[in-house]
Amino acid sequence: MAPRHPTTDQPVADLAIVGATALVGTPAIGVDGLAEFAASTTIEITDGAITWIGPSADARPSAREVIDANGLVAMPGLINTHCHAAMTFLRGVAEDVPIANWFNDYIWPMEVNVGGRDVYIGTMVAAAEMIESGITSFADHYFFMDEAARAVEKSGMRANLGSAFFSSQGNEGLAHSVEFAEAWHGRANGRITTSIAPHAPYTCNDDDLRGAADAARRLGVRVHIHAAEDMHQTQLGVDGRGITPIQVLAETGVLDAGVIIAHGNGIVDADIELLATHRDRVGVTHGPKGYLKYALGPLTPIRGLLAAGVPVGYCTDGAASNSTLDVFENMRITAITQKHAANDATWFRSGTALQLAGSGAAAVIGQPGMIGELRVGARADVILVDVSGFHCQPLHDLAATLVYCVQASDVRTTIVDGNVLMRDRRLTTIDREALLTEFRQRASALTDRSHGRTIQDYTT
Amino acid sequence: MAPRHPTTDQPVADLAIVGATALVGTPAIGVDGLAEFAASTTIEITDGAITWIGPSADARPSAREVIDANGLVAMPGLINTHCHAAMTFLRGVAEDVPIANWFNDYIWPMEVNVGGRDVYIGTMVAAAEMIESGITSFADHYFFMDEAARAVEKSGMRANLGSAFFSSQGNEGLAHSVEFAEAWHGRANGRITTSIAPHAPYTCNDDDLRGAADAARRLGVRVHIHAAEDMHQTQLGVDGRGITPIQVLAETGVLDAGVIIAHGNGIVDADIELLATHRDRVGVTHGPKGYLKYALGPLTPIRGLLAAGVPVGYCTDGAASNSTLDVFENMRITAITQKHAANDATWFRSGTALQLAGSGAAAVIGQPGMIGELRVGARADVILVDVSGFHCQPLHDLAATLVYCVQASDVRTTIVDGNVLMRDRRLTTIDREALLTEFRQRASALTDRSHGRTIQDYTT
Repeated sequence: MAPRHPTTDQPVADLAIVGATALVGTPAIGVDGLAEFAASTTIEITDGAITWIGPSADARPSAREVIDANGLVAMPGLINTHCHAAMTFLRGVAEDVPIANWFNDYIWPMEVNVGGRDVYIGTMVAAAEMIESGITSFADHYFFMDEAARAVEKSGMRANLGSAFFSSQGNEGLAHSVEFAEAWHGRANGRITTSIAPHAPYTCNDDDLRGAADAARRLGVRVHIHAAEDMHQTQLGVDGRGITPIQVLAETGVLDAGVIIAHGNGIVDADIELLATHRDRVGVTHGPKGYLKYALGPLTPIRGLLAAGVPVGYCTDGAASNSTLDVFENMRITAITQKHAANDATWFRSGTALQLAGSGAAAVIGQPGMIGELRVGARADVILVDVSGFHCQPLHDLAATLVYCVQASDVRTTIVDGNVLMRDRRLTTIDREALLTEFRQRASALTDRSHGRTIQDYTT
Repeated sequence: MAPRHPTTDQPVADLAIVGATALVGTPAIGVDGLAEFAASTTIEITDGAITWIGPSADARPSAREVIDANGLVAMPGLINTHCHAAMTFLRGVAEDVPIANWFNDYIWPMEVNVGGRDVYIGTMVAAAEMIESGITSFADHYFFMDEAARAVEKSGMRANLGSAFFSSQGNEGLAHSVEFAEAWHGRANGRITTSIAPHAPYTCNDDDLRGAADAARRLGVRVHIHAAEDMHQTQLGVDGRGITPIQVLAETGVLDAGVIIAHGNGIVDADIELLATHRDRVGVTHGPKGYLKYALGPLTPIRGLLAAGVPVGYCTDGAASNSTLDVFENMRITAITQKHAANDATWFRSGTALQLAGSGAAAVIGQPGMIGELRVGARADVILVDVSGFHCQPLHDLAATLVYCVQASDVRTTIVDGNVLMRDRRLTTIDREALLTEFRQRASALTDRSHGRTIQDYTT
């Protein structure tokens, strides 16, 4: 129980953010509308939750810690709906190559070298990069996930973790993914949630997909999977077994269980209808920087998905493809490429762009209302953004400033579950120099391919 | 004459950058190759020019000032090949609207309000933003250009300035543009060069285009013009007078005189042939962030232009469309969208991306060899970039790091003509608070449209 104010007997907040311009609303899904801001706003936080939001002019009992946010924008911490955090190790190893070569010639042979300590260190670097760029939650899909979970515990971030598997691993893949999900779900004061994480319909058979769906239902978590990553994959599915990858997810019960779908560039109209009937439990992650860079073809049909009420959120994927873990950047690229693809400059307004970063993304990873919004009762995942720089001024349209002008480095303060993980650009939970030293020492060994082995074959 | 070392009688440099990893080469135009870096490199600067580049291990006479660049990348200052610098005032005033509304309903009515002091202040803010993001040169196309020139003098930047005009201004438009170009060309120790700046073939008649070409030839400067901005404009030209906007430039002698062409998304194959025959004196500017945001349709055919030897450089256009003046961002968006448009992840390698930022851009604005390269004899426009951040590490592929990871805020130091304009993120020529105060005070008055007037009509 929180301490009480000595004279008023009101609860004293753990932390008060005072004087911020707060992003307090974005349009409902499918509505291409405006964002709502409240000037001179106080946000109080106690026991890791937002307990009060209102005018800073109101008299309030003093909080134990006060952050002066005058001149700063307070907004929900950004949510990265799909990544492979530990792949920071492989940033830049496979540039300017087609996606099949990216997998077969670089990433999968290199991942033979990855061990548990690498995943811990690589995930810590990812956490540092994400905290610095205003990301408070991420959905991760990788290996040695006990180590990733320890990095989440230590860094203070919030994460939904899934232990990835291929059917080529035999029964052990699914079993281990389920075991991990069961062991870690709800830990670290609830900051850690889990998913069952089959790699993709093209690397996992239907039995494993059914098993993943069953386990997800039993544990009350979601499946997290790559599917319909591009139109080529969708076409191969249709040619091979007569149905699309999304239809495979429907037939194996994955849509029914609830699923985070990465990346969905190959989603067709018939798929949208299927997804719409499960829109309370499915969502699509979108990270266009990597899709464009690896020339995956047409981009995710976000307009159709949102019109059907299917939530979409931004993702950074791994640093080996997207180069950075920057949701601001992917939001910006999504906004301009959606306008371009629709041949309509009036669509995907800044309010919508911000919806996908907040409540949309929260719905994608199964935490609607809990994160992604500044509202009383939500977990206190808040970032403070400095819009006073030359590149942001003047502020004729604050929503557009956040979407089109802000750089990751404009994030001054990052708060997760009520804890300040970065204060005025200084990380509080991570020792920068020690981490980077070990990271650099390990990085080159991971790129060795002289062993001639690989963890999987990309044959789609 | 530079002072000489007391014992060796060698010249003592004004400034030495020591210990940098230097970007010393990019592929020739049309070659999709690799960038070349030199580790532990010293760059010496005297009288505003680069006078020596070599290993930091070599014994050298001491310079008057030394910058320790260990751990930093030294690269040619970025060149912004087309902008309307003073439009920083109108950043965010016309978001989520089609381009015709952007002109007719917002920008051109608001520009009725713009006066000389606004252009000085708006250009100073643009200069500050550009210096902070590593831009050392810009080609500007706007009004009240005497004031823009004073801002260039004061800020220390390098700029090619053109006084914009419409034929609706009568004879005075061209005459004033020529007068400005003549008065300012070569001033500020050569940092200021000029162009003749008709707005576009759709707002300037053939007589004015011919007059611009004649004046450019006479003064030894280029024409700077918007042309073939999108495929719609090209189609209108073909429908209306039977030739494309680029063909209009050929017929009126503008290509022969030499020209900076913004933005060229509507360039067709026949145009490329025309441009190729003038490739020693024409270039195309490319700023995809704004093109995508305003849904201009297909992007500039850069692959065809480069294959034909026509130089291309990045541009930010004005902040009212592009939101920021950030060449790193436009380089990144160009790279990923060119791969996407070509459906080829192997094309537009990082070396090519960096060529467009340096020597390519220098050729576009008519200063090949003089800027855009780190070589002895070039003007000393150099930036130092910090790649030690989490979002850049590890450095498996340094060229890709510069293209895909670096943020504008990673630029530590910006040097133009041998003068340090930003040292470790602190501006040396601009008083930040005083400038922003006047800028904010003026910004809202400029958006007034109650007068009911406009400076021009967009009817294409």
